[in-house]
Amino acid sequence: MIRPPAELGQRLDEVDTPALILDLDAFEANLSALDKSLAGRKVRVRPHAKMHKSPEVAKRQLARGAVGVCCQKVSEAEAMVEGGVTDVLVSNEVVGAQKIRRLAALAKRAHIGVCVDDASNLRALEESGAKLDVYIELEVGMRRCGIEPGEQAVQLAKQVTGTKHLRFAGLQAYHGRAQHMRTMEERQAAIEGAAQHVAEMKRLLKKAGIECPIVTGAGSGTYMLEVEAGWDEIQVGSYAFMDVDYAKNEQAAPMPRFQHALFVLATVMSRASDRAIVDAGLKASSVDSGLPTVWQRPGVAYVGASDEHGKLEGKDLPRLGEKLLLVPGHCDPTVNLYDWYVCVRGGRVEALWPITARGAVL
Amino acid sequence: MIRPPAELGQRLDEVDTPALILDLDAFEANLSALDKSLAGRKVRVRPHAKMHKSPEVAKRQLARGAVGVCCQKVSEAEAMVEGGVTDVLVSNEVVGAQKIRRLAALAKRAHIGVCVDDASNLRALEESGAKLDVYIELEVGMRRCGIEPGEQAVQLAKQVTGTKHLRFAGLQAYHGRAQHMRTMEERQAAIEGAAQHVAEMKRLLKKAGIECPIVTGAGSGTYMLEVEAGWDEIQVGSYAFMDVDYAKNEQAAPMPRFQHALFVLATVMSRASDRAIVDAGLKASSVDSGLPTVWQRPGVAYVGASDEHGKLEGKDLPRLGEKLLLVPGHCDPTVNLYDWYVCVRGGRVEALWPITARGAVL
Repeated sequence: MIRPPAELGQRLDEVDTPALILDLDAFEANLSALDKSLAGRKVRVRPHAKMHKSPEVAKRQLARGAVGVCCQKVSEAEAMVEGGVTDVLVSNEVVGAQKIRRLAALAKRAHIGVCVDDASNLRALEESGAKLDVYIELEVGMRRCGIEPGEQAVQLAKQVTGTKHLRFAGLQAYHGRAQHMRTMEERQAAIEGAAQHVAEMKRLLKKAGIECPIVTGAGSGTYMLEVEAGWDEIQVGSYAFMDVDYAKNEQAAPMPRFQHALFVLATVMSRASDRAIVDAGLKASSVDSGLPTVWQRPGVAYVGASDEHGKLEGKDLPRLGEKLLLVPGHCDPTVNLYDWYVCVRGGRVEALWPITARGAVL
Repeated sequence: MIRPPAELGQRLDEVDTPALILDLDAFEANLSALDKSLAGRKVRVRPHAKMHKSPEVAKRQLARGAVGVCCQKVSEAEAMVEGGVTDVLVSNEVVGAQKIRRLAALAKRAHIGVCVDDASNLRALEESGAKLDVYIELEVGMRRCGIEPGEQAVQLAKQVTGTKHLRFAGLQAYHGRAQHMRTMEERQAAIEGAAQHVAEMKRLLKKAGIECPIVTGAGSGTYMLEVEAGWDEIQVGSYAFMDVDYAKNEQAAPMPRFQHALFVLATVMSRASDRAIVDAGLKASSVDSGLPTVWQRPGVAYVGASDEHGKLEGKDLPRLGEKLLLVPGHCDPTVNLYDWYVCVRGGRVEALWPITARGAVL
């Protein structure tokens, strides 16, 4: 693990770079904005820890009433449980003997849920002897994992109810692509489609006499649409930090507005007349969903990233040695590059939070 | 640090996934191919550790006669020195009081070089009191860091020779973009341009009575061109592992052919009639330079990556639970996602090498 880039009490401009900065005021405002948007609703909040990968962030979400967290990976769930989280849904299929063995071990320490979309995988989970909540993952339009609503899916639910150790907890219905559709109209159409899949599946389960306790899913770009369509639990992740990609979404009712809370602090390491080069390239801010932007420096653009360098162009370029904040293009894989959050309030480092699930791909 | 995904002696198909696999036979063949291509040449080899981030890899390069390694970051250099490497060139500008302080501390433990392109930065290095080899970084066509050949650059060299602690070690002349130009003709033209910059600068230095001990630079896509143009030292990185992006280069004389030695082992975690989903997305194989490819599975294509999922389409799709090897699009940022190399020979895990400079952005 790399040393922390900051010390408690330092001014922001004393922090070494590149550093992953969390603006605590903005982060807390985002937690409050979520609460406010859900006021008076019965929906459960289960934030996605795949985004922040830190029990410290999770604890603050749990303190606001979240029922637990989601993870995408068993090793991520291990880091959350290790950090004190007692309720984790692995919102993904867990395939392979080693992973199932570890999931079973984890289920002895915490309340664990998992998704399935295949009968043989379900048998392997049951044979592990683990006490698990099982959700059937529905394909709801993103064409990734999940099973179409229909007789085969009902059979899968029946198979769960017939096991000794597993509990049928409901449906996983997550439309990931919908989160990044730019207009509210497109997102509405996508979630309406997903809701039809869910309704059809619930109808088939009811007909088969199987109760569906919970429909879980929904991300930061659409969750109010799922809430209005009757989902019981939402899995929002990016709302807490935001990024350039999410900010490109049309901000319109019923979605609240979230603030940028996550930044990469960078230093200008070389200057020429027409460009400034910063020390934060694609190993410091993931470029899979686009380049970072420069925070509160109108006229200055981040125009290109190589592994360890970023190129700025524009007017009033920063001078050599100057530090500036970048807004990452995509928060999840950017967080995954760092071992520490440098938590800042009022221009000072207030805390250092370890990102203990960084690199937890297993 | 995340647990290793494998145990010594395991068969490849027993390794947990996603895992970063290093094929030791292919890796060693690449080291040999480099040696062979340079047989009879006087050039020094200083492999770039920004690519592999592991002293274990560096040691094997040093055992073949490398004079030391390059790094892009002070924290990377710290990890190399910590791992036993005694000669490191930070082939980059080091700007900011904290970084210079740490560089100075490192220079007490090992032979350290650094690049400069600015007079005030040079003064700060001198004031640190560190004994450092200083290279002036020339802008040679990539329009990133570096100073144009000319009077200002000569003044910078003079400034170095006038210091008490710093030694003028020569010129850094690296054309990064040239490495990824697809035709040999384009790469030849780019390196010819860089060579003209170097020749002009050497002429000006000579005129000013300043000896230029070493011209260093050159990457895996072009290094034989720089060797033929008279560079004294090469900084090859990717040759040791290769990736999809490098393999797209036209393979023609004078460049040798390198083999794919680096892979990501993935498991099929969901199957539908028209697709297989693997557990390796963009947090397991960096997509900045394109998607990974599927190794030795003709007809099967990796067509899309989300954070933790990859989508395969094509004929004869692998079955649920099957493991397969992916070739990363870009080796450097992919390595930077992992804590361990799972080193494999003859289908068995022979070694686990820690990637101790993983995440070393400071």
